[in-house]
Parts: sequence; structure tokens; C-alpha cells
Amino acid sequence: MEQHVSFVTLAVRDVARSRSFYVDGLGWSPELDVPGEVVMFAVGVRLVLSRWDRAAFGAEVGGPALEGDGVVPMTLAHNVPTPAEVRTVLDLARAAGAQVWGPVEREWGGFTGYFADPDGFRWEVAWNPGPIGVRVVPDTDVDARP
Amino acid sequence: MEQHVSFVTLAVRDVARSRSFYVDGLGWSPELDVPGEVVMFAVGVRLVLSRWDRAAFGAEVGGPALEGDGVVPMTLAHNVPTPAEVRTVLDLARAAGAQVWGPVEREWGGFTGYFADPDGFRWEVAWNPGPIGVRVVPDTDVDARP
Repeated sequence: MEQHVSFVTLAVRDVARSRSFYVDGLGWSPELDVPGEVVMFAVGVRLVLSRWDRAAFGAEVGGPALEGDGVVPMTLAHNVPTPAEVRTVLDLARAAGAQVWGPVEREWGGFTGYFADPDGFRWEVAWNPGPIGVRVVPDTDVDARP
Repeated sequence: MEQHVSFVTLAVRDVARSRSFYVDGLGWSPELDVPGEVVMFAVGVRLVLSRWDRAAFGAEVGGPALEGDGVVPMTLAHNVPTPAEVRTVLDLARAAGAQVWGPVEREWGGFTGYFADPDGFRWEVAWNPGPIGVRVVPDTDVDARP
């Protein structure tokens, strides 16, 4: 099996509400838009982020989606080239209605914070000066400490 | 905020068990390997899939991870260029110990199935002849119906 992720699909309770957060709040543009069912965004080279109706999800994937108060055990990271941009993106998310945590300096050398989208999915917004962090954001300025 | 996902991080109960499934079972090669803490795989252009210890995850993201019997409300899709390769990858996952659902022909024209990794995260293995499916796998053969 090749090491390749093509789609990340998040099951959401209200596709319209999630769409509004990403489009109106964060300024994104959908690649595919089927009201009430699914909205897809191009988020990289050969990579699509899809928000899918939770009921349809449960019917297809082999069981109903997990319910409860905890955090869905996954995060999506949005890496940026400077520490200042971490604050800028988190401020945008807060203005769009999201709860925000941080940003803080991490023991591994990065500067990151989190926000939750309308379904509680956590996004990490990260400046990462390590080798992998530089690779995912080619123009990372490793000397721009926060 | 640019439309860009840099990392997908999945919180796992046993990093070594998850690592073994991906490395020994599916044949993947880690990009970063910190036993007991994290294992990272390059899974696309500027895209990393990380498996992170669940306790560390809960301490950083603003609350403990969701517990329960349901399916984590997200999937990762691995798109392949032919329907036959859907079966090949699902057979590999089954041989590695994964539960498998399908593959079946979908009403939207694709041919897909799912498998669950050791922490229950669902992977969709998909042949998708639509425009977005072709874009994520440039060499998709749209005439190779299952």
C-alpha cells in the first residue's frame, strides 16, 4: 500500500453550519458543494478535505459515529511560515466564532495553538522550525523565533 | 487562512502497536520514529500522517479524547487508479489483521471499501472515476469499471 492520503473526511452534524464556518468565517472556497450532504475543499496537492453528513457517514463506514463529550482523537495541522502567522490565523478563527487554545511555545521548539471548528474538530496552527516542519512549509523562517 | 492541511494526527492507545500495523503490515516507512511517543509517515506532498500517544494528545489539545464504542467520525481515503487495486489494498489490510468492509460499487459511480486500523480509524480505499477522484490520482483509468 503506497503511503498516500487522498481525502480526509470529517463527519459533521450540520453540513451548512460547517460550510459557513469555513467559507464565511475562514474565507475558503469549496471545490464541490452538495447542500445538506457534503462540501469538499482542496487543501493540498492531490488532497481534499471533505465535510460529510454524519448520518450518511454512519450508514457507510460500518457503524454509527462515536458520541460523547471528549475531543475527537485527531487533529489537522495548518503549518505557517512564521510565528506571527500562528496568531493571525488563530485570531481569524476566534473572529469566526471558534474556541481557541494558545498559542504557546512547545518544548520541541515550535509555536502552536489550536482552534475547534463547529463540530469540535481540532485544528493545530503551527510554526514548526524542525526538519519536517520546514518540509511541509518550504518558506518557513527558522530564525524567526516567537 | 490558506486552504492547506500539513499534518493529520491520530491519537492512538499504543504507538508501537499502530507502528507495527503500518510498517510490518502495510509496508510503510516512518519519517520520524520516537518509540512510545509518536511515529510520522510522509503521505503526500507537504503532508504528514502522525500517530501520537493518546495521553500526550489529551494534555495538549484542550481536553481528553472521546471514548466509546462508535466509529471515530472521520475517515482517511487512499485512492487508487483501478478497481482491482481497491481489492489488492483491502486484502493486504485484512492480511495485516484489519477488519474490512466491502468493497462495493457506490451510487455515485465509485468502487470503495473500508478497513479499520488497530485503533479503529477507518480508511476508505477508493477507485473514484469522478473529476475530483481523477485529480487526486492522476492516472485513474475512468474506463476500468469494476
